[in-house]
Amino acid sequence: MRFSQVVESLEGVIGSSLVVQPGLDPELERVAAVDGAIAHDLSYIEGDKFAEYITTTQASALILPQQGIWQQQTLELGIAWVSVANPRMAFAQAIALFYQPFRPEPGIHSTAVIHPTARLGEQVSIGAHVVIQADVVIGNEVCIHANVVVYPGSVVGDRTILHANCVIHERSQIGQDCIIHSGAAIGSEGFGFEPTPEGWLKMEQSGIAVLEDRVRVGCNTAIDRPAVGETRIQHDTIIDNLVQIGHGATVGYGCALAGQVGLAGGVTVGDRAILAGQVGVANRAKVGPGATVTAQGGVMSNVPAKATVSGSPTMPFKDWLKSSALNRRLPELQQQLRELQKQVAALESQIKQL
Amino acid sequence: MRFSQVVESLEGVIGSSLVVQPGLDPELERVAAVDGAIAHDLSYIEGDKFAEYITTTQASALILPQQGIWQQQTLELGIAWVSVANPRMAFAQAIALFYQPFRPEPGIHSTAVIHPTARLGEQVSIGAHVVIQADVVIGNEVCIHANVVVYPGSVVGDRTILHANCVIHERSQIGQDCIIHSGAAIGSEGFGFEPTPEGWLKMEQSGIAVLEDRVRVGCNTAIDRPAVGETRIQHDTIIDNLVQIGHGATVGYGCALAGQVGLAGGVTVGDRAILAGQVGVANRAKVGPGATVTAQGGVMSNVPAKATVSGSPTMPFKDWLKSSALNRRLPELQQQLRELQKQVAALESQIKQL
Amino acid sequence: MRFSQVVESLEGVIGSSLVVQPGLDPELERVAAVDGAIAHDLSYIEGDKFAEYITTTQASALILPQQGIWQQQTLELGIAWVSVANPRMAFAQAIALFYQPFRPEPGIHSTAVIHPTARLGEQVSIGAHVVIQADVVIGNEVCIHANVVVYPGSVVGDRTILHANCVIHERSQIGQDCIIHSGAAIGSEGFGFEPTPEGWLKMEQSGIAVLEDRVRVGCNTAIDRPAVGETRIQHDTIIDNLVQIGHGATVGYGCALAGQVGLAGGVTVGDRAILAGQVGVANRAKVGPGATVTAQGGVMSNVPAKATVSGSPTMPFKDWLKSSALNRRLPELQQQLRELQKQVAALESQIKQL
Repeated sequence: MRFSQVVESLEGVIGSSLVVQPGLDPELERVAAVDGAIAHDLSYIEGDKFAEYITTTQASALILPQQGIWQQQTLELGIAWVSVANPRMAFAQAIALFYQPFRPEPGIHSTAVIHPTARLGEQVSIGAHVVIQADVVIGNEVCIHANVVVYPGSVVGDRTILHANCVIHERSQIGQDCIIHSGAAIGSEGFGFEPTPEGWLKMEQSGIAVLEDRVRVGCNTAIDRPAVGETRIQHDTIIDNLVQIGHGATVGYGCALAGQVGLAGGVTVGDRAILAGQVGVANRAKVGPGATVTAQGGVMSNVPAKATVSGSPTMPFKDWLKSSALNRRLPELQQQLRELQKQVAALESQIKQL
Repeated sequence: MRFSQVVESLEGVIGSSLVVQPGLDPELERVAAVDGAIAHDLSYIEGDKFAEYITTTQASALILPQQGIWQQQTLELGIAWVSVANPRMAFAQAIALFYQPFRPEPGIHSTAVIHPTARLGEQVSIGAHVVIQADVVIGNEVCIHANVVVYPGSVVGDRTILHANCVIHERSQIGQDCIIHSGAAIGSEGFGFEPTPEGWLKMEQSGIAVLEDRVRVGCNTAIDRPAVGETRIQHDTIIDNLVQIGHGATVGYGCALAGQVGLAGGVTVGDRAILAGQVGVANRAKVGPGATVTAQGGVMSNVPAKATVSGSPTMPFKDWLKSSALNRRLPELQQQLRELQKQVAALESQIKQL
Repeated sequence: MRFSQVVESLEGVIGSSLVVQPGLDPELERVAAVDGAIAHDLSYIEGDKFAEYITTTQASALILPQQGIWQQQTLELGIAWVSVANPRMAFAQAIALFYQPFRPEPGIHSTAVIHPTARLGEQVSIGAHVVIQADVVIGNEVCIHANVVVYPGSVVGDRTILHANCVIHERSQIGQDCIIHSGAAIGSEGFGFEPTPEGWLKMEQSGIAVLEDRVRVGCNTAIDRPAVGETRIQHDTIIDNLVQIGHGATVGYGCALAGQVGLAGGVTVGDRAILAGQVGVANRAKVGPGATVTAQGGVMSNVPAKATVSGSPTMPFKDWLKSSALNRRLPELQQQLRELQKQVAALESQIKQL
């Protein structure tokens, strides 16, 4: 693909803020990180921190920020460039011009086992050894990779992708344009047990898991269904690998849950909230809309809307910065305290002698 | 199902403490949470916190606590009720009247691959693409969902359920009435390596994993086998999703391990202990019988029997409440310390001048 | 196997430091832990802590440390012994004489679905329901257990073992002599999204995951591929269960990552570093070569080479020991502070009265 074609494509999404170098129009074959690029690669400079790579990169074309000095430098080195307000975003768009993930052709593999009552949409792709149980409804252009199992009564919306070896449990409702990665388990039985003198009494989990449109679920993530009602992930929420979402949790739209986050049962996460890696949220706790919980944070009660919180239990991020800095200096504080105690004792005896 | 039939069924398990409203006997079709219930739903009021829903719920019947005022209120609203000591427990029982999880018919799917030396009990259900290796013994009424793999020499007890895509590794012993959820890996090789100048030396893991009767294992949980001896989960213990149980660990009976708990190698967890979400227990540490470790706790050494501990490293819960509250107030304590230092310095110079 | 044969085999790896008792040469059938051993078992005494078991064990032979007193004691009890500098290491070697994990015969199961463009080496073992997509290259003596899925363009090196239900995503490069355990997902799409006013923009993940030779990956671990470039695990690194390795991370050679460790995107872990259970490493943070992060540590920025760090955020281990001990004593420190405040106030009023 010619560099000029890439620029043309970016114009469609980035618009008028784009400035292009005249002249050079190399043939591009790949996208690459600026420090790993070779000839015929397109790469990008995110900002000051990466600008030094301009002089060393072997890339044939660069997406630059809007600083004239870098344009000049790039030009002198014979590298084609286009300059935009957000180079990382433009690069994200450009990757899709060069690469699309593996997508099997439409068709149903002969080894797939599909219950006669299941309904399949048009142009579906059903891989080898897939198992689709009774009364399942699969939308149009759905892609189900090898060895996936779909339990009875589930619904999978148009264009959704189920990667190899994931399992969709009974009556789950998965929206359109979702991506469920390998090994994820959706709608499995929630951890609902009541203590009795004879041991744990299992509550049957009659509820369902609902994933709205454009939800993304990472590898080996588990999203349980509740005893009654729903576990719901609202539209456009993205979930990373190895995340645990307990029975009856509700996650708003546009949220991001990073790797190994754990939501206990009945948790509520507000719209556009961000939970960083290994965050835990306790039973029935609430994370407000637009809130951010930083890595390894433990939410024991509620996080206000738009707040950024840290620590376990969580506190406002700024407080946490101070208290964790002081935590490290506790031996010093203790030493100061001891010295004060000595000074005060000395003062006391001095005063007695007066 | 008539309300009166539900009441009759509850009498069998709840006994004489049950009081029923005379008269109303609606037809019930579902169970639901009180705030999501519609006509023909059975729901419940857990206690004071949920009592407000009595006036707004659309449920046709409610399981109530034993407060007369709520009975009266419910009666006036034309909702049938039954009153018990523990409504949540009664509701847990009632769910099973309306809902049972998906259970394939007995039979062996034609695509299952079963080694000729494997022995299968009566009335087993073996799903599509299941693989059962040599010398495996499967009990009566066992249900193995699609795409499960059972390695050689494993034993699966009567009525146990293996959900889709879980893997039972060689020589594992799984008791009766267990439930193993999707993607769980039982009896895989423990992380047993010795450091040598040439790198990590793998110790072959010749031991086995043993799950006693009525053990429940969540999705994508991993329970490893040890180099020698056993990893053992005793009867009636329940384990949530994404839990890691290291080689040679022993978990007592009646325990509950919540989501993302991690037990290192050789850990001992006493009977009826409870480990909340994301708790970690270090190599060879011991959690005493009846102990509770709260969420994200890090057990570095031993937890006494019946203790409740928190924090990382763990300390008694009450100490943790105080110290974590003070942790947050460290900047304030530092400020107080500084002021004292000034005061003492002022006193010292005053005394000198006397 | 005769005890003398075991000794002979150990001579090959342990060398001249080995001392053997003359005379006894029992037949050995198993390896076992010293407290669980029965007749015809070989066991070992790791050191002082386990020496008491010499008098109670039923083992027929023991590997001992080089203390004469234990040799004498063992001799008197009629147990055969061999004495070495590192009994645990010798025992690790000895296990492999008695036990090898399940290894299917070479051959391709009739239910495996292998794309015609895939190239298979010699003496491969391909289990039931395995799916191998286009352009995959499988080396010699590779063992792929049942229900594994390999996406297009992946390469699996000689003698590597893929356990049941793991998934190798497109274009992954897996070296020789690797072991990938059940449910692991290698080379899946990284969690690469850009925030936009319209929601999360997915960056296509055109990079690859590379596992060099002798890498070991635990059950249900996820290793993602990046937008561009590589996620790379260098040779001889061992990774436990349920570990998350984000897109673009680089892990050096000879490292050990324990259960439930999480590496965010772009993390660098230096050679021979050790990350204990549930450690988290934040975006683009660096762990230096030879460093150790203790359990549940949270690496927010950089860890120096060879350092041992702890806590969240991490600090030097020795500082953490002190500060976490003091953390627990915060109520006491607060009390001391209050008393000092009172004393100082008393002193102030005394001085005023002078």
